Amino acid sequence: MSADDLLGLPHHDGSEQYVDRATPRLGDVVPVRVRIPAARPERAVWVRTVRDGEPRLAPARLERSDEVERWYVADVPVHNPVTSYRFLLDEPGGYRWLDGRGVHARDVSDAGDFRLTVHDPAPRWLDDAVVYQVFPDRFARSSGHEGPPVGPLPDWALPASWSDEPIAAGRGVAQQLYGGDLGGIEARLDHLQRLGVDTLYLTPVFPGRSNHRYDATTFDHVDPLLGGDAALASLSGALHARGLRLVGDLTTNHTGAGHDWFRRARQDATSPEAQFYYWTPGEPGYVGWLEHASLPKLNYGAAGLAQRMVSGPDSVVARYLEPPVALDGWRIDVANMTGRYGADDHAHEVARAIRATMTGINPQAALVSEHFHDAAADLVVGGWHVNMNYSAFTRPAWTWLVEPGSTLPFMGMPVPVPRRDGSAMVATMREFDSAVPWSVTRHQWNMLGSHDTARMRTVTGGRDRALVAAALLFTYPGTPVVFAGDEGGLTGSTGEHARVPMPWEQIDAGGGPGWDATTFDAYRSLIALRRSSRALREGGLRWAFVEPDAVGFLRESADERVLVVLARDAWRGTVLPGHLAHAAPTTLHGGADLVVDRDGLHVPGADGPAAGVWRLA
Amino acid sequence: MSADDLLGLPHHDGSEQYVDRATPRLGDVVPVRVRIPAARPERAVWVRTVRDGEPRLAPARLERSDEVERWYVADVPVHNPVTSYRFLLDEPGGYRWLDGRGVHARDVSDAGDFRLTVHDPAPRWLDDAVVYQVFPDRFARSSGHEGPPVGPLPDWALPASWSDEPIAAGRGVAQQLYGGDLGGIEARLDHLQRLGVDTLYLTPVFPGRSNHRYDATTFDHVDPLLGGDAALASLSGALHARGLRLVGDLTTNHTGAGHDWFRRARQDATSPEAQFYYWTPGEPGYVGWLEHASLPKLNYGAAGLAQRMVSGPDSVVARYLEPPVALDGWRIDVANMTGRYGADDHAHEVARAIRATMTGINPQAALVSEHFHDAAADLVVGGWHVNMNYSAFTRPAWTWLVEPGSTLPFMGMPVPVPRRDGSAMVATMREFDSAVPWSVTRHQWNMLGSHDTARMRTVTGGRDRALVAAALLFTYPGTPVVFAGDEGGLTGSTGEHARVPMPWEQIDAGGGPGWDATTFDAYRSLIALRRSSRALREGGLRWAFVEPDAVGFLRESADERVLVVLARDAWRGTVLPGHLAHAAPTTLHGGADLVVDRDGLHVPGADGPAAGVWRLA
Repeated sequence: MSADDLLGLPHHDGSEQYVDRATPRLGDVVPVRVRIPAARPERAVWVRTVRDGEPRLAPARLERSDEVERWYVADVPVHNPVTSYRFLLDEPGGYRWLDGRGVHARDVSDAGDFRLTVHDPAPRWLDDAVVYQVFPDRFARSSGHEGPPVGPLPDWALPASWSDEPIAAGRGVAQQLYGGDLGGIEARLDHLQRLGVDTLYLTPVFPGRSNHRYDATTFDHVDPLLGGDAALASLSGALHARGLRLVGDLTTNHTGAGHDWFRRARQDATSPEAQFYYWTPGEPGYVGWLEHASLPKLNYGAAGLAQRMVSGPDSVVARYLEPPVALDGWRIDVANMTGRYGADDHAHEVARAIRATMTGINPQAALVSEHFHDAAADLVVGGWHVNMNYSAFTRPAWTWLVEPGSTLPFMGMPVPVPRRDGSAMVATMREFDSAVPWSVTRHQWNMLGSHDTARMRTVTGGRDRALVAAALLFTYPGTPVVFAGDEGGLTGSTGEHARVPMPWEQIDAGGGPGWDATTFDAYRSLIALRRSSRALREGGLRWAFVEPDAVGFLRESADERVLVVLARDAWRGTVLPGHLAHAAPTTLHGGADLVVDRDGLHVPGADGPAAGVWRLA
Repeated sequence: MSADDLLGLPHHDGSEQYVDRATPRLGDVVPVRVRIPAARPERAVWVRTVRDGEPRLAPARLERSDEVERWYVADVPVHNPVTSYRFLLDEPGGYRWLDGRGVHARDVSDAGDFRLTVHDPAPRWLDDAVVYQVFPDRFARSSGHEGPPVGPLPDWALPASWSDEPIAAGRGVAQQLYGGDLGGIEARLDHLQRLGVDTLYLTPVFPGRSNHRYDATTFDHVDPLLGGDAALASLSGALHARGLRLVGDLTTNHTGAGHDWFRRARQDATSPEAQFYYWTPGEPGYVGWLEHASLPKLNYGAAGLAQRMVSGPDSVVARYLEPPVALDGWRIDVANMTGRYGADDHAHEVARAIRATMTGINPQAALVSEHFHDAAADLVVGGWHVNMNYSAFTRPAWTWLVEPGSTLPFMGMPVPVPRRDGSAMVATMREFDSAVPWSVTRHQWNMLGSHDTARMRTVTGGRDRALVAAALLFTYPGTPVVFAGDEGGLTGSTGEHARVPMPWEQIDAGGGPGWDATTFDAYRSLIALRRSSRALREGGLRWAFVEPDAVGFLRESADERVLVVLARDAWRGTVLPGHLAHAAPTTLHGGADLVVDRDGLHVPGADGPAAGVWRLA
């Protein structure tokens, strides 16, 4: 695709320039706009909406026009909770469709339609949030002590010194205990603020029989190894006092086999808890998550489970939203499987119940699902606000930025991360993005990696490309999520191996072996850049050019246009239409200035991985 | 795409060579096979299935291998009612996915995954069926009389002589009454058998206030204008005595404003019927289908409506499946909107209720939905067996076969039918086909047109291309449906204009003005061809080549391989791999023989629209 191709195409997305009311109510009529470059030959433009299963076409009106482009506006009646729409361009040679995947010279299914939804979007604070993910065992110890943890330890624990390398796979991955705790985190909040993040997302804090604690033995209190209930309340108070937020992590799909409920269920088949699980003949006698006997799966067909777990004021969901912990949101583990088993599918009910419980306590609470795959159908029913965006962000970004020749397995698949061209990355991003409303896309939790994946620094094989990845993270639509340590260039080849203890000695020294100060400065600067630009936070997304080794996109709000250019390798630069920019664009990030002359807007090439961000208008 | 490209790609579909058990039960493990051309570089093949929302990969095993291709087999556990799967090809340069849309060198959403469903497929008789659609007012009069209908006529009727041209649009389209009746149809069953069809699909026979009768005033009896209940029972008996079948047409989305239920509802707000409709402020005081006051929409949230209409032995659905009418199936009008209104969505419940009612009376009854658009989500829930396949068949076929320069509006859209290349047609067919299980695709009701569209003869502008269309209809996977009169080359520029009375004088004379005997012979021959080949009825579908003006595909069963080549215009021919054919392929339809030599299988070109069908092996 050349620059001319992409910027020569009609464009629409759900951002403020195109849609006035991104979250309408049933019965509203929402004007939607489409921008059509002057050279297109359209005779007329129509909007196609689907109403009660039946499409209908309504004419769009020409709203304004200049030598660069024409803007049309059309009315979308919001008749169903989710209303899908697309544009019909009546052009010589046969009409075209414009949907979230692009322009099509053939009929396409509704899968890529734009969508409006009446369900409330994620809370407004996610507009500006930058999230910092912490795996509690590995962030900091309140004791400061560096050797193996001391004191009474659980029987399963394999004590590790703070400087030990995490086991990457096999025996001990879940038992290696470094002894990080909540007090340790609280003592290090300056680090978060120096970096510029404003939301702490903590993986589970309930007791379990593992270092990851996704196998909870109770939801009634915080793991004493982490400091217990008081430590969580204290951490939360400290965060809130600084104006920072706290998001918890809840496993709704299963409990640990050591959980109070499961023990009661096994002891007494007549107990209410006995209905909470799926019992099967043979060993182990119940359904475990992905066949893990340690993780018995919950059955949301059971009377009473919803009230214990997700619904109403006595639920686990509710309890930690109330003071003193007062979480600002929940991230739901294995959300994709929660409530689903065989012919049972309670997934949407459960998601809606959690949302309703949360909204009842704190309308500003955020609900984030974990779904590594095709989450589209689960994101439009009024349950999860947004998803951990592996599919539309992390995975395609990895395939473009992976080190050439890398043999790193691709997120649990039996194949290495493939190295694909820019067009593959962008097509995958557009395909997954198009399946959810813009009101979801703009808040999706984008990550370069997490505690469940290799680190981007390891994927890219080095600093330069990892910083291109960081530039993508902080300039792309969505909520940037940083896995603690990425900002210092930490590495890891698997999810478990990536759970590296933070090297505070080097951090405090401003850099050193195991802590890359240059990367830290780049992260700080990119986060500050995002905070300085409303277009980067809330603007639309228009791809400007896509080459194998370089891509460029525009982020545009009503008052600002920003160009982001990312190169994974040397490239020769390109020329974009001059009308995109004022005479002297401002360089916001990266090296060379842009030149605008009568040939257009000259985007400089580079001799290696590079990122540039410019304010064009 | 060149011939090499397509036949060089790995292939899978749901047909017998690839899937042993197309309709498994929950808990079954279904072996699925993939065929990989010898030149592909795969190191390994995996199958990816989605289970409770979570994908998992399992290795495929090499089952057999020769110099042409390798066959792998993998196990798909059927854990959910609909199980989606695709293949992972571990190849140098980055893995590929194979799904129903083709081979992808990037990650794709689950929308194109292959699918297995535990829901029973359409009855076996659809394997072999060729359906003949009749619009009762226009097929034949039992009187034989040619002038305007005589006798007491309804107040709305505009009597027409049998030879009058139907009004194409505007005033009178729904009132023009030609006076065809059920006795007339019964008297002409020889025509159906001469043609070779075996199933009669009748548009509605209930009384209404229009010639189309989609505005029923009662479901309790057959329109006396058509001969009443006795005539329908007689027609059904005559069909069954000849081994033919009868499918009815029921409007479940709405009734006529003159319907018994609606009159009672308006008279008495406390009547049960008053709950059957959606009442609104202002005129007309209720919701009508697409705002037509004559067609008040039914509300399936109402207590009692399901029992009257769709559920159980007293329902309308049930009554006509019982003797004496003993329908062999229902086609459901406006199925896409049935049960959907605003925040209400009872669509899947209604569809499942109809299926259950039908199965309870006659497990061999077929249930066909009308959905002009993206029906995929409605076809996997155990409701409609199959759909009237405008999206995956009729519309793409029109765009390829339309007369160059045609200005015919495209099925209600404000644009003409565009002329697209073969690649656009095939991509659209694959996109829509891929979203439903093969067990649906193979029985979908494919049409070249219907009483709701222009006639294909008018779309194509002449006989030659219309016969290419017919060749596509009778060789493509699915159930061919012929709109009565297409077999004699009747024309029509709109749905209403296409409802042409059958010109029996010319038909009986074996041709003449208004009846094209050449077309009739071609239809007969194509229907006989389909009946002679199990591969054409039940085989898989592998695209062999796609050019702008010519396309070719293979239909393959375990014991037969048939090549279909269609050209809409002059083309130069192509050469396919020689291994596809025995030394001397049998010509089944069309002119030239195929030649196989050491260069390959020579497919002859043509100097204009042409269709050829050969048995290769």
